[in-house]
Amino acid sequence: MSTTTTDVRVDGRTSAQLREITITRNWLDHAEGSVLVEFGKTRVLCAASFTEGVPRWRKGSGQGWVTAEYAMLPRATNTRGDRESVKGKIGGRTHEISRLIGRSLRAVVNTKELGENTIVLDCDVLQADGGTRTAAITGAYVALADAIEFARPKKLLRTANATPLRDSVAAVSVGIVGGKPVLDLCYDEDVNAGTDMNIVCTGDGRFVEVQGTAEGTPFDRDELNALLDLGAAGCAELTAIQRGALGLA
Amino acid sequence: MSTTTTDVRVDGRTSAQLREITITRNWLDHAEGSVLVEFGKTRVLCAASFTEGVPRWRKGSGQGWVTAEYAMLPRATNTRGDRESVKGKIGGRTHEISRLIGRSLRAVVNTKELGENTIVLDCDVLQADGGTRTAAITGAYVALADAIEFARPKKLLRTANATPLRDSVAAVSVGIVGGKPVLDLCYDEDVNAGTDMNIVCTGDGRFVEVQGTAEGTPFDRDELNALLDLGAAGCAELTAIQRGALGLA
Amino acid sequence: MSTTTTDVRVDGRTSAQLREITITRNWLDHAEGSVLVEFGKTRVLCAASFTEGVPRWRKGSGQGWVTAEYAMLPRATNTRGDRESVKGKIGGRTHEISRLIGRSLRAVVNTKELGENTIVLDCDVLQADGGTRTAAITGAYVALADAIEFARPKKLLRTANATPLRDSVAAVSVGIVGGKPVLDLCYDEDVNAGTDMNIVCTGDGRFVEVQGTAEGTPFDRDELNALLDLGAAGCAELTAIQRGALGLA
Amino acid sequence: MSTTTTDVRVDGRTSAQLREITITRNWLDHAEGSVLVEFGKTRVLCAASFTEGVPRWRKGSGQGWVTAEYAMLPRATNTRGDRESVKGKIGGRTHEISRLIGRSLRAVVNTKELGENTIVLDCDVLQADGGTRTAAITGAYVALADAIEFARPKKLLRTANATPLRDSVAAVSVGIVGGKPVLDLCYDEDVNAGTDMNIVCTGDGRFVEVQGTAEGTPFDRDELNALLDLGAAGCAELTAIQRGALGLA
Amino acid sequence: MSTTTTDVRVDGRTSAQLREITITRNWLDHAEGSVLVEFGKTRVLCAASFTEGVPRWRKGSGQGWVTAEYAMLPRATNTRGDRESVKGKIGGRTHEISRLIGRSLRAVVNTKELGENTIVLDCDVLQADGGTRTAAITGAYVALADAIEFARPKKLLRTANATPLRDSVAAVSVGIVGGKPVLDLCYDEDVNAGTDMNIVCTGDGRFVEVQGTAEGTPFDRDELNALLDLGAAGCAELTAIQRGALGLA
Amino acid sequence: MSTTTTDVRVDGRTSAQLREITITRNWLDHAEGSVLVEFGKTRVLCAASFTEGVPRWRKGSGQGWVTAEYAMLPRATNTRGDRESVKGKIGGRTHEISRLIGRSLRAVVNTKELGENTIVLDCDVLQADGGTRTAAITGAYVALADAIEFARPKKLLRTANATPLRDSVAAVSVGIVGGKPVLDLCYDEDVNAGTDMNIVCTGDGRFVEVQGTAEGTPFDRDELNALLDLGAAGCAELTAIQRGALGLA
Repeated sequence: MSTTTTDVRVDGRTSAQLREITITRNWLDHAEGSVLVEFGKTRVLCAASFTEGVPRWRKGSGQGWVTAEYAMLPRATNTRGDRESVKGKIGGRTHEISRLIGRSLRAVVNTKELGENTIVLDCDVLQADGGTRTAAITGAYVALADAIEFARPKKLLRTANATPLRDSVAAVSVGIVGGKPVLDLCYDEDVNAGTDMNIVCTGDGRFVEVQGTAEGTPFDRDELNALLDLGAAGCAELTAIQRGALGLA
Repeated sequence: MSTTTTDVRVDGRTSAQLREITITRNWLDHAEGSVLVEFGKTRVLCAASFTEGVPRWRKGSGQGWVTAEYAMLPRATNTRGDRESVKGKIGGRTHEISRLIGRSLRAVVNTKELGENTIVLDCDVLQADGGTRTAAITGAYVALADAIEFARPKKLLRTANATPLRDSVAAVSVGIVGGKPVLDLCYDEDVNAGTDMNIVCTGDGRFVEVQGTAEGTPFDRDELNALLDLGAAGCAELTAIQRGALGLA
Repeated sequence: MSTTTTDVRVDGRTSAQLREITITRNWLDHAEGSVLVEFGKTRVLCAASFTEGVPRWRKGSGQGWVTAEYAMLPRATNTRGDRESVKGKIGGRTHEISRLIGRSLRAVVNTKELGENTIVLDCDVLQADGGTRTAAITGAYVALADAIEFARPKKLLRTANATPLRDSVAAVSVGIVGGKPVLDLCYDEDVNAGTDMNIVCTGDGRFVEVQGTAEGTPFDRDELNALLDLGAAGCAELTAIQRGALGLA
Repeated sequence: MSTTTTDVRVDGRTSAQLREITITRNWLDHAEGSVLVEFGKTRVLCAASFTEGVPRWRKGSGQGWVTAEYAMLPRATNTRGDRESVKGKIGGRTHEISRLIGRSLRAVVNTKELGENTIVLDCDVLQADGGTRTAAITGAYVALADAIEFARPKKLLRTANATPLRDSVAAVSVGIVGGKPVLDLCYDEDVNAGTDMNIVCTGDGRFVEVQGTAEGTPFDRDELNALLDLGAAGCAELTAIQRGALGLA
Repeated sequence: MSTTTTDVRVDGRTSAQLREITITRNWLDHAEGSVLVEFGKTRVLCAASFTEGVPRWRKGSGQGWVTAEYAMLPRATNTRGDRESVKGKIGGRTHEISRLIGRSLRAVVNTKELGENTIVLDCDVLQADGGTRTAAITGAYVALADAIEFARPKKLLRTANATPLRDSVAAVSVGIVGGKPVLDLCYDEDVNAGTDMNIVCTGDGRFVEVQGTAEGTPFDRDELNALLDLGAAGCAELTAIQRGALGLA
Repeated sequence: MSTTTTDVRVDGRTSAQLREITITRNWLDHAEGSVLVEFGKTRVLCAASFTEGVPRWRKGSGQGWVTAEYAMLPRATNTRGDRESVKGKIGGRTHEISRLIGRSLRAVVNTKELGENTIVLDCDVLQADGGTRTAAITGAYVALADAIEFARPKKLLRTANATPLRDSVAAVSVGIVGGKPVLDLCYDEDVNAGTDMNIVCTGDGRFVEVQGTAEGTPFDRDELNALLDLGAAGCAELTAIQRGALGLA
């Protein structure tokens, strides 16, 4: 396997290059935190809803709760998909991604510091061009941070100086396309990828989730290592962009 | 009943004044027609999906079909609402509005001229501040017009010069707030309205739908007439804005 | 538009003539109020169920609640329709009509006077020949009045002399058939109507709901005015019939 | 066990006495066969819908199909029950009874003689006072017979003289109330019955279904025999009433 | 009708002979009671779950509750059946059998003696070869007895010497195959049976349920008597096997 | 991080030791392939159903299809869980695991060689003690192999010597428990794991799926490498056991 990262990709990027990433905060007027995140043409609206109180099973624990719901507008994709509300049930893929986003965010949340409050992250894909789940995680983190700061002056957190966020979290896809590991696959690359992997990392570079799937040929340990390297580097770049968006850079 | 239209409203408008209306065409890359329509803070994404062929019950009729689906993102509103996909069923309000949008558009469509093609209008409310259904109709018409022109050069319409649109269609809400008839209610006005009415008009000023409901006190014929006057005038303004957006002004 | 109201209709009526209207009270043995209402061949069974207590969201408000559910037996119509219970979901039309009936009744109910009680109106169409929703509203009002008088001697209302009903309410359909406005359309007229409108009025002649739809050609203001005149007159006749049934004439 | 059949029951009947049975044919205008059947206060509307063609799995077999659907209006009972359409699923009891009615009718139908046609029997309980399933079977048979005769002159049966009905079918409940076997239980008896049994017999006195359940104390063979005797005799009476209703007496 | 019980059946048995019956207790490690019951190739896993507390509607009654759920694995049968979880609803047959098992067990349970505890019997058919519901009842009784003895030393029953079981219960199918009454039908016999009957008896030989259906020709009283004789004898044999399995023989 | 693999675990195993693995072929009589697989107390029944033909979207492609459905019996676990069929919908976890099993098996299937046939793998967890999804994959592979050999003599594969299986596939869980990487977690270890990872490998040692989740603290690259080593070695052992079960050892 050769992994020359300088070869040109379908959209002109090098193997280790992210698409243009845009994070627009406060895209909505009502939500406690809201972000329109764009990874190239992929566009996901992340709304954080902060509410006092927690689900029944967590009451009295002194701990908060963070969860997420992912969905796609019917015409986010090239051809229209049926609405899950019309079909009357949520598909396996939607469930899977909602759970991934929730787990990824909770990995950096100190629920004690949050106090008995709930934050729901709604990640709605307005337009899809590959990498919607990783864009959602990356944008949702920023909306989550904003929702927490919304709550602070209202004295809703455990203390005035509570630190409900232990670290930041970002995610990116990597894959083997045309035999070469590449970062942040667009839709055209995604459908042709032999292996597809989503990497979720904390701001300090550790792993929260690693989900790799051989769509075609199984992958060996060397390929796996190359993908992990690419993904970790991509997440580091996204961390910097998140910090910039939050004015922490 | 006094109907002084010069009194100042909650957002500073006069009784007969629309909110700021914005129609942004081609907001999406994939859809055959797409519009982000804004009535003040109300923001609806209207995507028109053009597909060849018609539902089974219409096959062989030589006629096309136009339908619509309306939905709200969970955090479009002040407080988060549960997703209908999660609840596993579509609520009565959603059904009602989807049907209204579909009927309103079909009122100006010549399905013979469209040929055996289907256009689905997805109207997803990204942010709600009153009047989402009327904004959806107004925006969906423009997306519909774009989807038809997308199909024309592909020779998908009945003929090269087919005129599937008999006229344009626009909609606006009117209501009695604080005893006075007003045009294009924002959310704060809507919840306080004694009577709430949605008016759908064609470009030539005729009525397609008139739906008035006394939320509090029943209304008399004079009040009804005042509301119809306001609504018809509002629709005429919206017609002009639609024409401007389509470059027909 | 010529609106000669003397022309003979498909069933021999004049334009402004109601079908034969029958209201049979106490058609059921168990329900607190029950009415079999007939508008010609249209036959709707309206059962009012009075229960102490209100839905959770209304508890402690001191106010009662009135709601309605509309449904059709599978063979109410010319050809059998599938049961919504078998399909596992309620259709948009059913939802829409249930909501309309509930709103119409609540428009004349003083929920404070009712006390914290709930009345559910079940309107089941046993046979359909057009105008089922307007027959349902007209009959349900009578069943509602009976259920309230059932509760009075049991001291369940706010006071012994409570007046939970501010006024009566009745409804009728009007439409433009063969270019002419007509009252109380039967099924054959309904399918041929260019415009179809449902009018709900209080006993004192004010409007509670006006829902007009151009099925074919949009309608102008003159046509709309003619329909409103016909509908208001029809509701006045129905009000008199309701009073007669209740022994108030 | 003493089975004195002369003791007076809650409604004055003797142990072996049916309630007043009424069979009203052609209660509906649209259905090919329709019967309002009354067993005392129990009132079931049975509509037979005849359609040409059979379900997919039976196509080309040369045989017809007969099936049934049972349901209860929400206020058929003493206290209102939720609609199964609103709950989004059909309960076990409803399923069970629908299947019982269908099997009972098919036991007397020669599907070859019926030709490739389908008859659906909708049995909707308008008012319930015990024995709704047995009333439904008894009434549905008459509606079925009418639907077959509706089809004969239209030449839809296998031949002009086809005999799709091998025999008639009727049903009645029996049970042990206060230690004594009784026929045709009303609701008050039903809730107090130690054993409850439904008997379905053909016109010639053979059994189609025997369904007995010990609600309280298990029953011995003598009690079982006494119940079977009562039920068979009751079915014979109902057979005569059916023949009378059909003008065959 | 000739009922020679010596004729050889499809699997070599005589008319009055059960298949090989095996009851394996404690097949699972977690459940409070668990039995793998086999009637020939029919194999049903019965798990009894004992939990403190009762459903809401029974709280404070001092009485316990016993209920059952029956289901089939998709490949229990000759050809794979779709999962009810995937179809999103439970079929009529499943509902019917779950209810039958629950009623049969409750017929021998003294809920007062059980105390306010709930026992759920899950009967999952791992392999089906006819008679799954009767095997389920027969096995579930043993699992139920084990679950009760599990609870006794934990002092969860009403008293240390409480007797929540009044008697045992067992079930078997009988039917008329090739004109002859036979006991415990295997699948091949079941599909060819003219009449099919399930008999549920207590240990002392009384009837809890008798459910007979003429799949083909209606049956007369003599045939019914022969089936009842066979079934009662079969249940007596099963009672002995249950006692043996429980070490009471 | 110290990874002493000799420390004793909760059940006495060393860090790199599998539980006792048992693969029982032909556990069912009807299924084309069936395996009861046990990883310690975890017990999964894997049934392979071979049917001619493929889903509609694959017809005419010359390729077969392999898919899987995973489910748990309600009392597989320590405390009873509600049935998904009763809840009316399949949970996210079930969806996720069904999809994982299907993908894992398809990774070693040459669908061309299979011909236009479908194999469904039903993996039903009879008892759960951690690692149900990995046991399911490991057992399902053997059932799949048997179903293919069932079809070969019936000439249902592409050719008499068709090789629909490119390789074998096995799966195991690994995780960080008490700070140490361990292989094949039982339930007690699973709930205490800081990181949980499922590894799916082909017989030749390449990766098909790698799914790691930090339940508590994020993991670094060294820990990830240690887990991958353990998992790959575990899969190699399972491959040998599968070969033994299939008589290929």
